[in-house]
Amino acid sequence: MEKALIASVSESVKEHRTVVENLFDQIDRASRDEPGVTRAPYGPDENFAHEVMSARAAELGLELRRDAAANTYMTLPGRDRTLPPIITGSHLDSVAHGGNFDGAAGVVAGLTAIAAIKRMGLTPARDITVMAVRAEESVWFQVSYIGSRGALGALPDWALDVTRVDSGRSLADHIAECGGDPGGLRCGERFLDPTKVHAFLEVHIEQAPNLVEAGIPVGLCTGIPGNFRYPNARILGRHDHVGTPRRFRHDAMMAGADIAMTLDRVWQDNENAGRPMAVTFGRFHTNTSVHGMTTVPGEFRFSLDVRAYAPEVLSDVEARFHAAIKDIEQRRKVTFELGPRAEAAVGEVSPRILGGLEAAATSLGIPTMRLGSPASHDAAAFAKAGVPMAMLFVRNENGSHNPEEAMEIDDFLHTVSVLTLWLVSETCNDKIAHGQR
Amino acid sequence: MEKALIASVSESVKEHRTVVENLFDQIDRASRDEPGVTRAPYGPDENFAHEVMSARAAELGLELRRDAAANTYMTLPGRDRTLPPIITGSHLDSVAHGGNFDGAAGVVAGLTAIAAIKRMGLTPARDITVMAVRAEESVWFQVSYIGSRGALGALPDWALDVTRVDSGRSLADHIAECGGDPGGLRCGERFLDPTKVHAFLEVHIEQAPNLVEAGIPVGLCTGIPGNFRYPNARILGRHDHVGTPRRFRHDAMMAGADIAMTLDRVWQDNENAGRPMAVTFGRFHTNTSVHGMTTVPGEFRFSLDVRAYAPEVLSDVEARFHAAIKDIEQRRKVTFELGPRAEAAVGEVSPRILGGLEAAATSLGIPTMRLGSPASHDAAAFAKAGVPMAMLFVRNENGSHNPEEAMEIDDFLHTVSVLTLWLVSETCNDKIAHGQR
Repeated sequence: MEKALIASVSESVKEHRTVVENLFDQIDRASRDEPGVTRAPYGPDENFAHEVMSARAAELGLELRRDAAANTYMTLPGRDRTLPPIITGSHLDSVAHGGNFDGAAGVVAGLTAIAAIKRMGLTPARDITVMAVRAEESVWFQVSYIGSRGALGALPDWALDVTRVDSGRSLADHIAECGGDPGGLRCGERFLDPTKVHAFLEVHIEQAPNLVEAGIPVGLCTGIPGNFRYPNARILGRHDHVGTPRRFRHDAMMAGADIAMTLDRVWQDNENAGRPMAVTFGRFHTNTSVHGMTTVPGEFRFSLDVRAYAPEVLSDVEARFHAAIKDIEQRRKVTFELGPRAEAAVGEVSPRILGGLEAAATSLGIPTMRLGSPASHDAAAFAKAGVPMAMLFVRNENGSHNPEEAMEIDDFLHTVSVLTLWLVSETCNDKIAHGQR
Repeated sequence: MEKALIASVSESVKEHRTVVENLFDQIDRASRDEPGVTRAPYGPDENFAHEVMSARAAELGLELRRDAAANTYMTLPGRDRTLPPIITGSHLDSVAHGGNFDGAAGVVAGLTAIAAIKRMGLTPARDITVMAVRAEESVWFQVSYIGSRGALGALPDWALDVTRVDSGRSLADHIAECGGDPGGLRCGERFLDPTKVHAFLEVHIEQAPNLVEAGIPVGLCTGIPGNFRYPNARILGRHDHVGTPRRFRHDAMMAGADIAMTLDRVWQDNENAGRPMAVTFGRFHTNTSVHGMTTVPGEFRFSLDVRAYAPEVLSDVEARFHAAIKDIEQRRKVTFELGPRAEAAVGEVSPRILGGLEAAATSLGIPTMRLGSPASHDAAAFAKAGVPMAMLFVRNENGSHNPEEAMEIDDFLHTVSVLTLWLVSETCNDKIAHGQR
């Protein structure tokens, strides 16, 4: 790769700093919900973010398309339109009172990479498509990867009847309202044939401070964890007076604390043994409509997410979870009702693309480090469908899914430069542009 | 005691079965709030219960009085009105969605005992007063014994400014609205001089199934536990994405589970060592307005009530509680904000009255057993003020502070018979009626 081309990538990306800031500002202002921002999937604020990105795509002269799941595709046509495209993107929804960058950064990154490629006067060998994905945050419908699985024809039928936790309306209703076609999704129609996608790349803010700790702006993903989840579990005991002696109690809350500490010990043991995983009880609560200082809680509710990079770690933890429940039910005279269970497979990264991204970063003089993704991402849905996948993480101080999420635009632009140079190497350099996956 | 008199007590009490059922039904119907009943202190349903009891007192020709805390006193005049009266009674408020008998049974018991004494044609040597106490359930104002301490001039000044958790209005406002005199309470005026009360007796449903387990209808209290409480404690950590690695987490919820399991172990150890106590986290919850399946909880709230019969057990548990907090704060990178602390002293029962009640039950052929009260009661406020105190428990299958509270009227009438015979022995038999405390 010529030195001039490499320098041109960095400069062309940096030129778009104001456009980038303006895109983030527009969607931030529209979805402010102090503290933080809220962009519910298939809601007005997510729609607005799709409009903002589509408007930017129109400025860049990109082709605009929508699929049955109401995902937005913004395509820079390649020289040979019959070749499988490269897709890069992420989601535009957010958790309630989350940050502005989780998801959106990946869409802005794709648009900025294309703007830089155009600014450099290059035409890629194959289409490059920026995909703005719908409904990635599973907290809303308790279903993961709705938009990306919808695009790939991999969304299970029952998911369309699930209701959004705040609106109480079905996913099908919400999709139809946003111009999608729930009927088509129900029939398994797919917009993307995974055998005809050259690669999927996702830029995302890092959701832990590994990069901050290491002083490195860009992370390159080595894998996406799989998980098992119990979104709506309950423990049933008996409400009793605060003075009820121990042997008569059916204390649902103590049973909750007990199962949490049990999984916390399993987690610590795995950490100590070098097997990374995570346990999160995001919702963990007595029944707020009846609880009180002088009543032993007869009911307790929780959500559980357990994630790990190895399937055998997941299955071992889940087995211990069930064994602990049996023990606690007997000791504490309560009943666990776990409710629906969900899971996601471990998502593998393409070693070839990972190597290419590392080479691009080295050429650009941008420090990177390899990182296991702690979180789930749309990229995992593409990996599961067989599409070669990679992810780039942007340094971010305060984690995500919270209002204090903090990403420096400089770090973002460094990440976009790495993506752009990889895209250029993959599609604009005749020596390496054809056919390889 | 003559056999005829003893038989007459049981018969005279039993004659009032329909009246008793009718009194319970009236207040149950008025305060139904499915599941269960709700009689908020200084609210319309508590007021109505005072009216129902006052109307019954009027039928019996009793003197009616009110004090500055809006407690109701219903007095059967004795032969010598200058002698200190015997007071018997309990409270008429309830927890939200509680049972109909917790509290109210003690007022109905007093009125029924007086009805039986009148039916037998006896006039007591000294006044017997049934007291309907206000605001015993501390869940509403987070302050214990409001009515009884108000009557005894022992309610702290600041308590009048505390707000009720549901209405948000101050105790002073609520008292004034119900015809009381918060200004008088603020100046420490007292309606009852504890040195001029002969004894305080309280009938209450048992709040654990000890009597059910033993097959015995009536329990005689050996002591009321003291407690320490943290009604509104918080743990502050940091909201983070579900994938945040362990070493970066500030998980407030895991800190909550940790402190709960620590106190649970302390409790189990004390039980094993024969030192009865109880630990209750009645409210124990992530922040329901921001929590979600994919967010590590950055905030956790709980209420804590720890009770025991020995002051040294309480202070030992509290010391362990604070030591554990320090440890958890360090290990889990969170901060505990315990908020206000409340406490209640251990309440001692008069051995003389306890012996008298046991003798009365034996005369009547009613089986009793001695029981430590698991719960706090107005009787403890009287004991603390120096008034000789005793309590009688009625067998109750399903605990209290819940809608399934279950008391058989037969068991209730047995308990009233024991109370009545003791009152007769104490005040209507010339040999033993004078001066003894």
